Amino acid sequence: MLLAFYKSHIITFIPTTPIVEQWRAMESTSTLMNKWGFMRNSEQKTESETTIDGVLTLLMSTLNISDSRPIIHMARGEPSAFASFSKTQIAADAIAQAVRSAKFNGYSPTGGVLSGRRAVAEYLSQDLPDDLSPDDVFLTMGCKQAAQTILTVLAGSKSNILFPKPGFPYYEVFAQSCHLETRHFDLLPDKDWEIDLDSVVAVADENTVAMVIINPGNPCGSVFTRQHLKKVAETARKLGILVIADEVYDHLAFGKKPFVPMGVFGSITPVITLGSLSKRWAIPGWRLGWLVTHDPNGILKEHGIIECIKGYFHVYSNLPTFIQGALPDILGKEGCHSQTVNTIREAANSCYRGIKDVPGVTCPNKPEGSIFTMVKLDLSVFVDIEDDLDFCLKLAKEESVLILPGISVGLKNWLRITFAMDQSSLEDGIKRLQDFCRRHSQKA
Amino acid sequence: MLLAFYKSHIITFIPTTPIVEQWRAMESTSTLMNKWGFMRNSEQKTESETTIDGVLTLLMSTLNISDSRPIIHMARGEPSAFASFSKTQIAADAIAQAVRSAKFNGYSPTGGVLSGRRAVAEYLSQDLPDDLSPDDVFLTMGCKQAAQTILTVLAGSKSNILFPKPGFPYYEVFAQSCHLETRHFDLLPDKDWEIDLDSVVAVADENTVAMVIINPGNPCGSVFTRQHLKKVAETARKLGILVIADEVYDHLAFGKKPFVPMGVFGSITPVITLGSLSKRWAIPGWRLGWLVTHDPNGILKEHGIIECIKGYFHVYSNLPTFIQGALPDILGKEGCHSQTVNTIREAANSCYRGIKDVPGVTCPNKPEGSIFTMVKLDLSVFVDIEDDLDFCLKLAKEESVLILPGISVGLKNWLRITFAMDQSSLEDGIKRLQDFCRRHSQKA
Repeated sequence: MLLAFYKSHIITFIPTTPIVEQWRAMESTSTLMNKWGFMRNSEQKTESETTIDGVLTLLMSTLNISDSRPIIHMARGEPSAFASFSKTQIAADAIAQAVRSAKFNGYSPTGGVLSGRRAVAEYLSQDLPDDLSPDDVFLTMGCKQAAQTILTVLAGSKSNILFPKPGFPYYEVFAQSCHLETRHFDLLPDKDWEIDLDSVVAVADENTVAMVIINPGNPCGSVFTRQHLKKVAETARKLGILVIADEVYDHLAFGKKPFVPMGVFGSITPVITLGSLSKRWAIPGWRLGWLVTHDPNGILKEHGIIECIKGYFHVYSNLPTFIQGALPDILGKEGCHSQTVNTIREAANSCYRGIKDVPGVTCPNKPEGSIFTMVKLDLSVFVDIEDDLDFCLKLAKEESVLILPGISVGLKNWLRITFAMDQSSLEDGIKRLQDFCRRHSQKA
Repeated sequence: MLLAFYKSHIITFIPTTPIVEQWRAMESTSTLMNKWGFMRNSEQKTESETTIDGVLTLLMSTLNISDSRPIIHMARGEPSAFASFSKTQIAADAIAQAVRSAKFNGYSPTGGVLSGRRAVAEYLSQDLPDDLSPDDVFLTMGCKQAAQTILTVLAGSKSNILFPKPGFPYYEVFAQSCHLETRHFDLLPDKDWEIDLDSVVAVADENTVAMVIINPGNPCGSVFTRQHLKKVAETARKLGILVIADEVYDHLAFGKKPFVPMGVFGSITPVITLGSLSKRWAIPGWRLGWLVTHDPNGILKEHGIIECIKGYFHVYSNLPTFIQGALPDILGKEGCHSQTVNTIREAANSCYRGIKDVPGVTCPNKPEGSIFTMVKLDLSVFVDIEDDLDFCLKLAKEESVLILPGISVGLKNWLRITFAMDQSSLEDGIKRLQDFCRRHSQKA
């Protein structure tokens, strides 16, 4: 390879002298000539190493291309792909107006355009005991950048952070990239996927900086009660740690329990809320997110966290300015939210009912929020399924149905299923899942 | 502070028992109660520590609020603030159409939407000997994220990277955040700010991974010749390192030398080009950037760099999808580019002429590209100016003119001036600079 390179190089640029002589001359002039001085960062993950994407790539590669049926994608939550969720004209008009106004062509101020920050503060304050100020809000490139921001700000040489199990694997990747040690507490399937607070206390130590909760829950489809959230805050206070509340599915709660924002308990322990419009408006590609601090007692300021968040946004770009400028118009409108919630509720119910008839698969809780549910595999039912990954690979190959193995979100021999799709695709997917499980079960 | 916190906490949530008893009880139940377990990341810079923003904040704080004249901002290049550069309706229409099409609501594919990547490949190929493929292009949140991507990918425990002096300080901040050691080579004011290639060889060693060049130059306003760029590539090849070419000001070359992209020399040594539409279209807030690989000999692929870049975009969001979707329409249009270049040329000439009449300040080269020039201070001319920072602070206070001290870009007792503003503001700013320097000079 390198020889080939030298040759082509010499041929192209120094054509007047015989190649071998040139090459010898170059070698003798520099001892560095035989190598390239760079290599990839071994700590930076490649595509195949990032959990969900890596597994999805693997699943996709096993699909049977001679299967003429449509592929049913129950692995990744992407509601915007489905017509019933794509009624975003109001939001699109707001973007078009903002970009055409030419008011938002310049660099974004640190943390975001004031009118956009104020709009988010007012929007979230509707569900909080005390009004947020625009200064509490930082606009981000989706919930992802909001998470990256706070993990970067909290990182330190000995620090560790607590994540739920099962959870959202990108948190692990972000934490590793900023050298934050990761530890895990359990979610309890028999208690509506509530947090096992004893396990939180058990894994925390004096170097623990924060715990992350995801509510409504990805991957479990759970919604936490007000009482439970209060206990979470009290536990965090005892440990002297922050609560980072990923509320990206905020108002996608469609069961009996209302969504309660963690920020309600910011006076017990400081709370950082991560959110976005991606799910509510089915526009994940717009990257409209935020990081919000709930800190009525000024603990975050006192510890330099606020100043450090501002510093982050001096280095890393946040959201394109005109998208921020459209926020007041978008958040001022109800849009199609109640319709979206109804559609997702029906899909969740339909999915839950369908799974009841699948041998070897049980769903411990009817999903009440987000667009996912976790189901448990009973491997003893099957004749030739090794584990959850094996299940998903064979399902992809035989039925062109993509489902995420639980190992990707931290629970082996479970599956994460999304029901955010149109009704006919969902029914088709569940039907194929049933056929697959019957075919592979002992009684087949 | 903590006492106040405990009190408010107890009063709010446990109102039935006397405060002091509660507090004592809480203290005894946990030894962790007296502290918070988190602190800010000491490696993450705060606002005041990030060079340009920190200095700008300082300059702004010294402005005299009783000065009724408008503030002249010659410190930060923000052409979009001026009406003459804001003819972006074609681009705005493309964005409006893309967002309203509802085709780009979903997550971006890794590296970007294919049509957008293809548009950038075709756009840049116009000036290259070989056509780029869409696979060579990664769409990014401005040139900033493009820089972050390649620095993250190249980082390693012992690696170091070479930056120009003077240069663009964000590179230092990014490199430090991914633990890349930074070293510096010189730009030569007496040779049109060309790179001192001997100084490149002198600071490089076996752990050097890349050198960064900025062409057209920020902060120097220089444009490199084809011959010089070829020598840069040959030097990099000898050292076995990449060239990272920041070409964010690509076609803002308005002197005698045409802009030549570094990618022309990708067959000598692998080249990574960082670019954006921010400057050409005066839309920095749109964050429309790219990272492009020029690697006809496959060196980057062989070293795992391409795979690692893809991995980066699995973790970090790139540009909002609908902005990517608008790229083919935007890049297909000439827009107002030639008009913009003419306007900037006039401003550069006007600035250069004006500075000739300022005592104690000399501009070694007429600017030929970008929107900046570097001028040298002769401190012996002044009676009461300590250094470049002192000069800029007094200028801000007395004349409401903001200019960046050279120390912010690596050259003490120089100044970086931007001329990207409307003619009357520019003349006003130069006039006030003249008045200031005359007032503080020995002959005054």
